Amino acid sequence: MSVEEKFVSLEEMLVDLKNTTELMIDLAYSALIFGSKEIAKEVVRLEDYVDELRTKIELTALSIPRSIEESREFLTLIRVSTAAEEIADAAHHLAMVVLKGAIPHPILPLTETETEETITRVKVSEKSVMVGKTLEELDLAGKIGQRTIAIQRNGKWTYNPDKDTVLRANDIIITRGFAAGKKMLKDLASGALTKF
Amino acid sequence: MSVEEKFVSLEEMLVDLKNTTELMIDLAYSALIFGSKEIAKEVVRLEDYVDELRTKIELTALSIPRSIEESREFLTLIRVSTAAEEIADAAHHLAMVVLKGAIPHPILPLTETETEETITRVKVSEKSVMVGKTLEELDLAGKIGQRTIAIQRNGKWTYNPDKDTVLRANDIIITRGFAAGKKMLKDLASGALTKF
Repeated sequence: MSVEEKFVSLEEMLVDLKNTTELMIDLAYSALIFGSKEIAKEVVRLEDYVDELRTKIELTALSIPRSIEESREFLTLIRVSTAAEEIADAAHHLAMVVLKGAIPHPILPLTETETEETITRVKVSEKSVMVGKTLEELDLAGKIGQRTIAIQRNGKWTYNPDKDTVLRANDIIITRGFAAGKKMLKDLASGALTKF
Repeated sequence: MSVEEKFVSLEEMLVDLKNTTELMIDLAYSALIFGSKEIAKEVVRLEDYVDELRTKIELTALSIPRSIEESREFLTLIRVSTAAEEIADAAHHLAMVVLKGAIPHPILPLTETETEETITRVKVSEKSVMVGKTLEELDLAGKIGQRTIAIQRNGKWTYNPDKDTVLRANDIIITRGFAAGKKMLKDLASGALTKF
């Protein structure tokens, strides 16, 4: 790899590190709110991924030739990746609370309804307009402020789904977004709303 | 305080804990992207707040009478508050990277443009339609998917501003939201866009 390629690779990995750790916080709180061990397990899996990513970032940063002046900048990168990994670890610990199986206190699910940005879980009905459309075509983020963070299909979860993902009947989707778009999403998924 | 009041108080504190720790992650990454020591300092301040909040939650949970069966549920609450505080600690460490003053590597600001959900910083111009309106009236979250996470006025920062906050000329606002609404926000703030 040339130095330029290494820079591009480093940049992409840093974007991935930021997005993955933010997703882990989202998923860990979702696991808690929905009492979902499946989502909690995904947080545990992502923690391993972040561990690997962090090592790759550090090795790449160390392999780029630099002057003494530039060394301080690279040290910042290494410190950032260390701190990001701590975010991942903290999300992991939150997920472990769910996995250890202590019965959720009845207060916990309520926290979700009062926050400004909320997590929503809907099942796509056979008669929903969402069926057969890609996430890009639906543009839930742009239109109703709901970002799809995970999709469950045939018992298998996909996190941070690609914009080309085509939704199918019986998919379960988890979104993060503003309370305003929550009801609209539920109505779209159930088939009660056909235009938006 | 009656047992009912304690439950309400516990619920409100848990919502606050979740929102504050999520905000801290947002702000810590913002501090890094913008190289802002001011925002980083706020993360440090919020960490102290979360420490106090956690203690209050634990003391309240312990002061509610419960049966042996219910004790497990309360233990979950205590574990959740511990894990949430770890999230706060991790955000704090990320903020410290900014505060320690290591020169940011040129790659860091780029990470912001490529992520799906982005942080935007705009200054409200005198001729902007935003001047004199409350956040509720503007409804940036509902209309362009941009949630205002912080406002700077006369050098002072306000985080998670209230919906009744009236915007003034020269306010600097930081939002979190989808890339689609970013340009619109910039145009609204500069005065180039007067309707949305």
